[in-house]
Amino acid sequence: MALNITQKLIKDHLVSGEMVPGTEIGLKIDQTLTQDATGTLVMLELEAMELDRAKTEASAQYVDHNLIQEDSKNPDDHLFLYSATRRFGLYHSKPGNGVSHPVHMQRLAKPGKTLLGSDSHTCANGCMGMLAMGAGGIDVALAIAGEPFYVKMPQVWGIKLTGELPDWVSAKDVIFELLRRHDVKGGVGKVIEYYGPGLESLSAMDRHVIANMGAELGATGTVFPSDKEIKRFLKEQGREKDWIKLVADRRAKYDIDEEIDLSTLEPLIAKPSSPGNVVPVTEVAGTPIYQSYVGSSANPGYRDFAIAAEIVKEKRIADGVSFDINPTSRQMLTDLVKESHIASLLSAGGRLHQAGCNGCIGMGQAPASGRNSLRTTPRNFPGRSGTKEDSVFLCSPETAATSALTGKITDPRTLNMKYPKIKEPKNPTIDENLLDEPLPYETAKNVKLEKGPNIASIPEMDKMPDEVEIPILLKMGDNISTDEILAGGSRVLPFRSNLPEISKFTFEIIDDTYYQRGKDSVDKGGHAIVAGYNYGQGSSREHAALAPRYLGLRVALVKDFARIHWQNLVNFGVLPLTFVNDEDYDDLVQGDILVANDLRNKIQKGNEFKMEVKGKNKEITVQHTLSPRQIEIMLKGGIINWVKDRKVKS
Amino acid sequence: MALNITQKLIKDHLVSGEMVPGTEIGLKIDQTLTQDATGTLVMLELEAMELDRAKTEASAQYVDHNLIQEDSKNPDDHLFLYSATRRFGLYHSKPGNGVSHPVHMQRLAKPGKTLLGSDSHTCANGCMGMLAMGAGGIDVALAIAGEPFYVKMPQVWGIKLTGELPDWVSAKDVIFELLRRHDVKGGVGKVIEYYGPGLESLSAMDRHVIANMGAELGATGTVFPSDKEIKRFLKEQGREKDWIKLVADRRAKYDIDEEIDLSTLEPLIAKPSSPGNVVPVTEVAGTPIYQSYVGSSANPGYRDFAIAAEIVKEKRIADGVSFDINPTSRQMLTDLVKESHIASLLSAGGRLHQAGCNGCIGMGQAPASGRNSLRTTPRNFPGRSGTKEDSVFLCSPETAATSALTGKITDPRTLNMKYPKIKEPKNPTIDENLLDEPLPYETAKNVKLEKGPNIASIPEMDKMPDEVEIPILLKMGDNISTDEILAGGSRVLPFRSNLPEISKFTFEIIDDTYYQRGKDSVDKGGHAIVAGYNYGQGSSREHAALAPRYLGLRVALVKDFARIHWQNLVNFGVLPLTFVNDEDYDDLVQGDILVANDLRNKIQKGNEFKMEVKGKNKEITVQHTLSPRQIEIMLKGGIINWVKDRKVKS
Repeated sequence: MALNITQKLIKDHLVSGEMVPGTEIGLKIDQTLTQDATGTLVMLELEAMELDRAKTEASAQYVDHNLIQEDSKNPDDHLFLYSATRRFGLYHSKPGNGVSHPVHMQRLAKPGKTLLGSDSHTCANGCMGMLAMGAGGIDVALAIAGEPFYVKMPQVWGIKLTGELPDWVSAKDVIFELLRRHDVKGGVGKVIEYYGPGLESLSAMDRHVIANMGAELGATGTVFPSDKEIKRFLKEQGREKDWIKLVADRRAKYDIDEEIDLSTLEPLIAKPSSPGNVVPVTEVAGTPIYQSYVGSSANPGYRDFAIAAEIVKEKRIADGVSFDINPTSRQMLTDLVKESHIASLLSAGGRLHQAGCNGCIGMGQAPASGRNSLRTTPRNFPGRSGTKEDSVFLCSPETAATSALTGKITDPRTLNMKYPKIKEPKNPTIDENLLDEPLPYETAKNVKLEKGPNIASIPEMDKMPDEVEIPILLKMGDNISTDEILAGGSRVLPFRSNLPEISKFTFEIIDDTYYQRGKDSVDKGGHAIVAGYNYGQGSSREHAALAPRYLGLRVALVKDFARIHWQNLVNFGVLPLTFVNDEDYDDLVQGDILVANDLRNKIQKGNEFKMEVKGKNKEITVQHTLSPRQIEIMLKGGIINWVKDRKVKS
Repeated sequence: MALNITQKLIKDHLVSGEMVPGTEIGLKIDQTLTQDATGTLVMLELEAMELDRAKTEASAQYVDHNLIQEDSKNPDDHLFLYSATRRFGLYHSKPGNGVSHPVHMQRLAKPGKTLLGSDSHTCANGCMGMLAMGAGGIDVALAIAGEPFYVKMPQVWGIKLTGELPDWVSAKDVIFELLRRHDVKGGVGKVIEYYGPGLESLSAMDRHVIANMGAELGATGTVFPSDKEIKRFLKEQGREKDWIKLVADRRAKYDIDEEIDLSTLEPLIAKPSSPGNVVPVTEVAGTPIYQSYVGSSANPGYRDFAIAAEIVKEKRIADGVSFDINPTSRQMLTDLVKESHIASLLSAGGRLHQAGCNGCIGMGQAPASGRNSLRTTPRNFPGRSGTKEDSVFLCSPETAATSALTGKITDPRTLNMKYPKIKEPKNPTIDENLLDEPLPYETAKNVKLEKGPNIASIPEMDKMPDEVEIPILLKMGDNISTDEILAGGSRVLPFRSNLPEISKFTFEIIDDTYYQRGKDSVDKGGHAIVAGYNYGQGSSREHAALAPRYLGLRVALVKDFARIHWQNLVNFGVLPLTFVNDEDYDDLVQGDILVANDLRNKIQKGNEFKMEVKGKNKEITVQHTLSPRQIEIMLKGGIINWVKDRKVKS
């Protein structure tokens, strides 16, 4: 059967399931990517799993998010991550090397491989003929430990590119066109695969731009072929040997078909406050701006900075505009310096920042109140810039640089100059030592993890007991979000690497006595909570399951669960149960004691069983929807124990 | 009479007093410098004074401190400062232009002039043959409004430099030698004046390094001659016309004489946690480091970065070391880029940050817990880096770069290479538009101040009434510090530009009902506080006087005052009184009501008068130590009103 690239990649990595869209498949993962904001928990999970050495072909830890060191917490995390990469046999990219996605592309990405990353823009490396997907931290920890990644078999959305981009229109406008057509949920459950003659004029880094913002369409991944342009790119990086050809079979079919004629595109812009809010730049031209921002994984290429430099060269940016230049990788910054582009940007009045994610993730460069910010970043969700009620527009580097000159949103086609053709540097910088290589095993096995005062190992979790007799510590209503279970924000997040500390905030908004009562329950067999519909909606943060589990949460009994939180509860060994009869919810009150004997057997024997309400002469019927694999995880007390046991067996 | 340079500068600017060391003199101020951390309050004070236009020859507002924009507060301040410079006829230096001191030196410093700055390192520009002094914000606001600056006539400490620095020893080691000899209070009440044949080998920027850290000796200022090297520097900046020759008269005398033979110096280092804790580098060589930091106003020169670049060129910094490069000015960064030095630093593994003060003032780049940080900055006070119990060493760029290569503190003389001779770039970048020039008056007068939601004008203050009948809202003990009056720190400081908001924290540590009781007192004639000895010790922050004044504080009656807080109380119109009989302190309790009739007359007639304690049949004798000028200020309700009235009269 003729296969498209996505199907080939999946077929090559399939370890369970069948390639029927919508059904669960297990995929072997070749490479992983973690960044520092999510990486500390991943490394603590690896420690808790007693992992000896990464089982992937290449796993890399990048430090690109928390680069602002206002106190010792971030640098302590950096040192911990460094020591963990030394211990577990990972690559390490230090602060100042740049954003994970372009650096991974330069140094490690390989056509034909799978990449799983604890960052939603991991899909960017799909530009290299890889199946690259973002996932939760524990999924990436499992992949590093050699476990498959489970995901629903996606539909493949084939997008045929024809024609060539007009002057002043660039890759960013291609992905904006898709967002304009399909909005931010248009890619859910799909892998977007690009093909066709239009590819010839798109460089590997242009494709990175397009692949990256597949995340904004909600896609499972974005896939480009590995063609002669990818060969050229790898050669430029001194890695020609890593190239293989990977293209769709001639008669390959797609689940969905679409076409973009590049020659018909014009400069586009996403208005506040959604990447899907796309209109032509002409429609908002003249809007005054406070800031013009170049950089991020959504425009990381040499070209993206060089074109901005050429546009502002020997000119001056408008008075009162902050023209923020955020280099994306050390190699590229070095080349931009050598080729005088940085000098042009500085002389025009640009503000050069360190290489990293920076303002794109709200780390600095927040705009002033009530002012418009124009950015080449991938997202403009409300408040993401750090400023409340912000007003962020997303655009191409051409539009950003042109608008910096005029002080208002400006269609770059109105500039009175020839469209600069950017030549890549003749001898681009290749820094083969940019990443610290994994240590040899004999050295690695003796490395101690370096934990600053704010980093604590994940405590051991007990297995599911046979008998439970546990009080209901909280009874809650419908739509309890993970923000109510464990808030995010600057008060709580600094403790992301310290479960005992972060657990102090658990359910604080709902009942600030919960923490103490939960902690007291641990030695007495734990406790339960009861809630209504849609329990655990909102952010996917794993701490919202891990923290209550640490405080003794054994059973969450609710009317129904939000999907991701349910998965997190399973992963960390909290039994997620629903009422068979919703009326039973009404009869339960805080303090009631739930009793179940022979619980391990009950969970395994079927999906439904009874629990007694102690001293109330009442039984309630509950059910679970665990798969056989998940039952095994649950009995062992969570996925960390499960992996640990497999390791012992193997 | 033969004069030294300091005496010439003072004589030229003397508007009151006599040149007798230790007595108060008034000096005409030609130039001012403000940075953004102190500048917002200065600009609000100018607004409250109803200033129409700056009366100085050149006043510049630099944005170099609060460059991390995690939310809208800092960028709102930046916009406010920009609008204030437009309104009042000031120069403006935008974020990204670099640190005030080197930028001022490049664009505005003029031999023979006085410079007053609301930054303690303002003395750095003494390298240009100026009398450059740091001061409080209100002093600078007054100077901008055309008022003299009052200071005690300093002793002049002449330091004769002979010989020439050996290889691997540089300007930083010269000032370390003085700190080694005299420690951090050695310069109090003195201006340090350098002269002698040793000057010939010190460039203008080398002299900046030495002048800058006069602040660490506690000196009133540092003065260098304006000789042919300064002429060369100004010519390089396209400002040869600003040069005048200014040297000491041949037979000039100094109050104190000292000599340094440069040829005898070796690389020095200041150990944690004082700039005065100086030893030879050899004494601590081998100490492992986490961080090596290049930059700050204490090593701002092209040479300082270029030498670091030459040292690490085509080498790699040690694993696990954060090599932080902090450019100090846009012009210099552009030249360092053009001359390939930035490429060398990046290729070696350096982490390039935006141009500004950055980690030197704890804005990012904090070291990890329990690790050593090596910096070319001027200060290593405990915790200044952002990390509690930090361990910061201060050194030259030679020592910093060498140690970055080895991962431990290393004497640069042990490097196996020839000492690189740095040539200044042939055509150095001159950016004549680097600073936004003052607007012409006709345009400026119509500019509106741009105030974000967190910026509030200073409310009008009433004049001293004739009759007071005011309750004692607080009775406190000895040694009350300004931290207890109004705390600093990250909870309070963000409201530095918002008096109504920041006043909510007043006396919070002592009595959290004070704010409300104070606010309620405003419409009833205000209130008093009573305290023991050393009232107002600690930080010089003006808000500690301004905030209670806003809440109705009229009289502070104490056993005695800390000097600077006393001055601040006078400036903001709070009557500072002391007990003539300390026993009266014991008889007063919170809630007692102090009464004085004909108060304005009493203050003017003498230093001592009586106040009645209402309903207690008791009188207490109080005194003040106000000068005639200060009495005038007090009667008008503070210095802002006093300046406003002078403006109306003139």
